[in-house]
Amino acid sequence: MKPVIEALIDALGEQAVLHGARVAERATSYWDASPTQALAVVKPRTTGEVSKALEICHRHDQPVVTQGGLTGCVQGAVASNEEVIVSLERMNAIESIDPVGGSATVQAGVTLQALQEAAREHDCLFALDLGARGSCTIGGNVATNAGGISVMRYGMMRSQILGLEAVLADGTVMSSMDEVLKNNAGYDLKHLMIGTEGTLGIVTRVVVRLHPLPKSCNTALAALTSFEAVTQLLTDMQRDLAGTLSAYEVMWNSYYHAATEPGGHPSPLGREYPFYVLLQAEGADVERDSLHFEQLLERSLESGVIVDAVIPKSESERHALWEIRENFEAMLAGRTTFLYDVSLPIRAMAGYAEAVRQRIVARWPDARCIQFGHIADGNLHLFIQPESQDADHLASDEAVYAPLLDVGGSVSAEHGIGMEKKAWLARSRSDTEVELMRSLKRAWDPKNLLNPGRVFSL
Amino acid sequence: MKPVIEALIDALGEQAVLHGARVAERATSYWDASPTQALAVVKPRTTGEVSKALEICHRHDQPVVTQGGLTGCVQGAVASNEEVIVSLERMNAIESIDPVGGSATVQAGVTLQALQEAAREHDCLFALDLGARGSCTIGGNVATNAGGISVMRYGMMRSQILGLEAVLADGTVMSSMDEVLKNNAGYDLKHLMIGTEGTLGIVTRVVVRLHPLPKSCNTALAALTSFEAVTQLLTDMQRDLAGTLSAYEVMWNSYYHAATEPGGHPSPLGREYPFYVLLQAEGADVERDSLHFEQLLERSLESGVIVDAVIPKSESERHALWEIRENFEAMLAGRTTFLYDVSLPIRAMAGYAEAVRQRIVARWPDARCIQFGHIADGNLHLFIQPESQDADHLASDEAVYAPLLDVGGSVSAEHGIGMEKKAWLARSRSDTEVELMRSLKRAWDPKNLLNPGRVFSL
Repeated sequence: MKPVIEALIDALGEQAVLHGARVAERATSYWDASPTQALAVVKPRTTGEVSKALEICHRHDQPVVTQGGLTGCVQGAVASNEEVIVSLERMNAIESIDPVGGSATVQAGVTLQALQEAAREHDCLFALDLGARGSCTIGGNVATNAGGISVMRYGMMRSQILGLEAVLADGTVMSSMDEVLKNNAGYDLKHLMIGTEGTLGIVTRVVVRLHPLPKSCNTALAALTSFEAVTQLLTDMQRDLAGTLSAYEVMWNSYYHAATEPGGHPSPLGREYPFYVLLQAEGADVERDSLHFEQLLERSLESGVIVDAVIPKSESERHALWEIRENFEAMLAGRTTFLYDVSLPIRAMAGYAEAVRQRIVARWPDARCIQFGHIADGNLHLFIQPESQDADHLASDEAVYAPLLDVGGSVSAEHGIGMEKKAWLARSRSDTEVELMRSLKRAWDPKNLLNPGRVFSL
Repeated sequence: MKPVIEALIDALGEQAVLHGARVAERATSYWDASPTQALAVVKPRTTGEVSKALEICHRHDQPVVTQGGLTGCVQGAVASNEEVIVSLERMNAIESIDPVGGSATVQAGVTLQALQEAAREHDCLFALDLGARGSCTIGGNVATNAGGISVMRYGMMRSQILGLEAVLADGTVMSSMDEVLKNNAGYDLKHLMIGTEGTLGIVTRVVVRLHPLPKSCNTALAALTSFEAVTQLLTDMQRDLAGTLSAYEVMWNSYYHAATEPGGHPSPLGREYPFYVLLQAEGADVERDSLHFEQLLERSLESGVIVDAVIPKSESERHALWEIRENFEAMLAGRTTFLYDVSLPIRAMAGYAEAVRQRIVARWPDARCIQFGHIADGNLHLFIQPESQDADHLASDEAVYAPLLDVGGSVSAEHGIGMEKKAWLARSRSDTEVELMRSLKRAWDPKNLLNPGRVFSL
């Protein structure tokens, strides 16, 4: 047994350190059922144990990969046989909730859904929301600065964080567990840590912001005939639902049609419209808000901004609409799929989406180019399905990323860079920016031990 | 003439470099009319000129102090005779506004009010707002991560920034002019720059987020008898004005009474209530929102949460209410005043405010301890007026800051640290945190040339 493993077992106990065959009993990730590769999997229970583990790894020059809920899309948490995994799975306590101050203190291994539910019991909202809510963890949400469906109203994970505690490469504990919205006492170190994908430290505990729990929820699925109409409806609804518009999810026909194929989700509207928007407003007054929401939809129908719409009449109908947008497993089953997550100015989005489609079908005539996204955030997702023996990932990347350059887009809106997009980082960032990122990595992790080689190479 | 000044004149021209007697023609700051002290004042017109100036200063080991609107409260922009001032006053262009994408690109020397007004012309809202709006600049707002009266709804300056460009100590231009809400491509360098008070770079251009311009505005001044009622009203209004509550400014009697003294602002309510709240909601429908707002106020009166209230019936009446909160010049005139800006959990605020008052009057029996703040953000301001020959600033600091320790408070909610609070940084931050701040300063400004000695010493 390697000395670093012996030292970890000595410090944390047998139960906390999986090694040998026990490592391979675990799946690699949510997306990949093959056996985990790693020298060992360490499962600390406290910040102190994370600190001990990193101090030991630092002394042994041992690279470390941090794991949360394993739902990430960019291979950021997949380890090699030379790396030690630190999993936060046993640090899953919700330590406290303060409904008056609007904050909760949680450990990094708590799932997003567990926090959402705990907040709701206190009549509060934890505002981050995304499809992987049942599995993804708060620590992973911080490491990737997660986005999702509520960003237009509440901001990304970064905006939900009041304070955090992290362990640095040498075991130093950086504790900045602020509970208040405003703290300008010196550099705000937590903002450097958020979104750095575990390359600067392991987040162990977080103080998150809670919002008042909305009392009303109004949802509609609308059909539209042009992207201009999509942006017009967004502008109208942002203005007229002032402050209560929580979600505005756009599906190109390519997505909606694929999601509602026979055997898939039932379609409450015709399947041939160019665009579909799933919008949701959450307010304070059930009757008043519902009436207002219906009036606004009627006005949009009368003015021709939307051409058809459906409003769910029950929670199960609402759930069925969201399933169309969130549950796309059937669309992926049995097909080679390349998943993308780009951002770009909304004024350039329609042209960009069409340019990518043309490039893809020029390369693969039978390909499916499925497009959808959080348009208010400038965030577009794409599933590229070449439907061809020659399913070259790099060729697909080139088709998707090359046109982004001209419009100031980013190769990662909310998924991060990890290993998968590392080669494309320079498409979104200048040499100066990447060199400045490296300077920060060198300052805090000079031995390059934390998630080494992820995001960029030193 | 020093060689560094000659080199600056050679590079930028005579017009761009004030030196000698011309420096002393300028006032030190908004708060201090005494002559500016500096080796020279450099007034670049472009990012390229800022870069040239810093490259020259770097070559000559010349310390630099950056100046914006000079309204800062912590002596962060006051230079010495050994330092060169870089003033952004000539970089005051609003370069572009995109109402559909919800963004504006501006130079750092634009005043907050100029940006607010330009956005409004496009039916958009730039959401940061604070009393110094007419003088303070966007660059200064970024450097200090400014707060103000709209933070509860829209967040601090940090939340308004989509992209920024800054010049580093050696003249390197870091350009991260993102236009989109979501960009997780590598470390988010702008968040490291925001709030570092010019110690890591000079911000030259910014892309800010714009929101839809609200159509309705409802304001009230309410009187309350306890801090419990203040927090109850906040909870009720946050819930029932879902997403539209924009401001919730609390004035202790000490503030309100002083502001409405004979010769000061007229008082629309009795002057002896323990607490006053100025609240404002901004929505989409003038008639509907106004009716709803009045109904909520009536309910709060009936339930006893508030004991009296006034709703302005015109813009000038609304302005008069805001003057009570924002125009406190008369309160300060002719009195030695120490200004504080602390944050702490709202549950601890009433006790803290009373503890400080007791400490102050124990030291100075005739003192005025004036308290007010952005309570929803956990942000309390204090004016300490000793009314005594022995107006010892340090004794006042001790009285205000010592009790903060026990409740996890911060010595700076929104004003920053500058020179004035430098000795107190360690009250808000651990040794580890301050050492990590130093490591970042060393990484980006190893010669310690940018705003040296502000925030912390290297």
